[in-house]
Amino acid sequence: MVRVCEPYVGAKEIAMTQNSTQPFARPRPAPEWHVESWLNTDQSLSLKALRGKVIVLEAFQMLCPGCVQSSLPQAKRVHALFSHEEVAVIGLHTVFEHHDAMTPTALKAFVKENQLSFPIGIDQGVEGEMLPATMARYNMQGTPTLVLIDRKGDRRAQHFGHIPDLQLGAEIMALMKAG
Amino acid sequence: MVRVCEPYVGAKEIAMTQNSTQPFARPRPAPEWHVESWLNTDQSLSLKALRGKVIVLEAFQMLCPGCVQSSLPQAKRVHALFSHEEVAVIGLHTVFEHHDAMTPTALKAFVKENQLSFPIGIDQGVEGEMLPATMARYNMQGTPTLVLIDRKGDRRAQHFGHIPDLQLGAEIMALMKAG
Amino acid sequence: MVRVCEPYVGAKEIAMTQNSTQPFARPRPAPEWHVESWLNTDQSLSLKALRGKVIVLEAFQMLCPGCVQSSLPQAKRVHALFSHEEVAVIGLHTVFEHHDAMTPTALKAFVKENQLSFPIGIDQGVEGEMLPATMARYNMQGTPTLVLIDRKGDRRAQHFGHIPDLQLGAEIMALMKAG
Amino acid sequence: MVRVCEPYVGAKEIAMTQNSTQPFARPRPAPEWHVESWLNTDQSLSLKALRGKVIVLEAFQMLCPGCVQSSLPQAKRVHALFSHEEVAVIGLHTVFEHHDAMTPTALKAFVKENQLSFPIGIDQGVEGEMLPATMARYNMQGTPTLVLIDRKGDRRAQHFGHIPDLQLGAEIMALMKAG
Repeated sequence: MVRVCEPYVGAKEIAMTQNSTQPFARPRPAPEWHVESWLNTDQSLSLKALRGKVIVLEAFQMLCPGCVQSSLPQAKRVHALFSHEEVAVIGLHTVFEHHDAMTPTALKAFVKENQLSFPIGIDQGVEGEMLPATMARYNMQGTPTLVLIDRKGDRRAQHFGHIPDLQLGAEIMALMKAG
Repeated sequence: MVRVCEPYVGAKEIAMTQNSTQPFARPRPAPEWHVESWLNTDQSLSLKALRGKVIVLEAFQMLCPGCVQSSLPQAKRVHALFSHEEVAVIGLHTVFEHHDAMTPTALKAFVKENQLSFPIGIDQGVEGEMLPATMARYNMQGTPTLVLIDRKGDRRAQHFGHIPDLQLGAEIMALMKAG
Repeated sequence: MVRVCEPYVGAKEIAMTQNSTQPFARPRPAPEWHVESWLNTDQSLSLKALRGKVIVLEAFQMLCPGCVQSSLPQAKRVHALFSHEEVAVIGLHTVFEHHDAMTPTALKAFVKENQLSFPIGIDQGVEGEMLPATMARYNMQGTPTLVLIDRKGDRRAQHFGHIPDLQLGAEIMALMKAG
Repeated sequence: MVRVCEPYVGAKEIAMTQNSTQPFARPRPAPEWHVESWLNTDQSLSLKALRGKVIVLEAFQMLCPGCVQSSLPQAKRVHALFSHEEVAVIGLHTVFEHHDAMTPTALKAFVKENQLSFPIGIDQGVEGEMLPATMARYNMQGTPTLVLIDRKGDRRAQHFGHIPDLQLGAEIMALMKAG
């Protein structure tokens, strides 16, 4: 499942074999995120503060097996490979089920045990709603979801599920080179 | 790290390449476990009630990465391969850290999301002690720990960390054939 | 695809989930193999000479991807784990295609580069036949094929394709304990 | 082991954690390759004919385990992911040992069995020399070696051994975007 903005990141260069591509009309500013609190950073991180960097936003839940096995290890590899001056890896804990299990306390222990060192925001819960605020605003379909945001703050690609490292490396670099 | 009882499970047949083997003087009854509550079973499971089956006891913590990545998937494979009339796979949630994160509620969500279907006992916490009761009694060094108990209820092998599938398959069968 | 002799190795203990099990009427002596020449051993190895050991016979072709990726690494693990006094791992190069590519010279280089240290026999080619002699006699359907032979020299299980390490470890130990 | 030309592909964006980077003074034209014969293509492929595309040149030997397990599967992934109008994946069979095992006939069977569909050139052997012509000219240290050549025909990076998919995806895209 791939949801993309137009023009798709590296669309010309990557063979468009994905069936489920849904192009947006044109690049649009990524919605600001709503975060209750942050781990692994002393200060709140706004989209604006990260302007100029390519952002790799990894939405996950700590009890989602696909996140634990595939997406978070991939986010760690991205964080280890690319220059932190150029690419910001941001985790987003988007709890939409098992709220009493995936508490901030539990997340803190999870982050420590899994040695995640990039900043992680806890998506703001919304009274009476299943989905937390940022997840709803980004129209995410579940976890894991990977969002790529360019240096200007435009959302350029959104992937539900896992994408291969080769493709992700290419998509990140396409945005880095985009200026 | 391998702690074994004497005679070691399949010791004659498996090349003894493990350096850290600590043979006990002779097979001894496995200590009864102390469990607060059970998941995936309607009734409490005592060692006695399982007499006649080979028991594969998998001690784990839901936030231990080695458990999530290696040992629990292995326990699932054991549960899927062997006849349930012959081999009982039992999980034991031995929380010795992050107690406020790894609550029974959190475990229940974890078990569901990871599709664990074998019985899992929650090791009894002890007032003022870091280690829960069964973990202490079995002298476990951490998680994951795998304990093999024979049909008579004697503890025959105890492994701290991960052992390969090939070895585990052989050790289980050695106990099945032991009578 | 599993072809087995009766009683199946560990049949009682392993849940019989394999659909393609074809039980033979009763255990029968494994046919003697016909080998042109041997690698990794100074002397010819007959079934008779190995009497008393459990034999894990791995039929393969050096250009068969499934053999290279799965079966030969598994054979190496078996060779490394079990006592050589108890278990004999034997490779059998059963060339039935690309004869001009998989020559004895090429096999020798392959064995060296892949660091295979167990004895390997080259199955005897037969004038005018596609299948080499041992392969035909064992009624193998392709490569890889794994054959388990008990201490008395009876063929007890034959697997076409790959079986999991857990199952293989159990099946080998079942034969070790059988007598 | 990484040997690179200056400016390194994506050097600014990728954290330079590799110790063994040896920058050349400046980008230089990739040496033309010397190929005896081609597989998977009807016509000879010169560097010149590929001008305008990014070239991923994978030097390998069919009996090199690291090539079979890691590099050729990676080359297949590159071939499957990127547009063939933009990226040319080229295999180069650089035999420097076991010449009598890795013959053109053997390679042909290998290519078929491993379902390699990109063009593969057989590096030209040189009378009295261990290394074939292109391998020597490129100063390769062994197999596998991955060479990245930009749209203008300049060699931009050369990796001995394996590099992660994430990095390779980024390096390829850096060259695609370079013009």
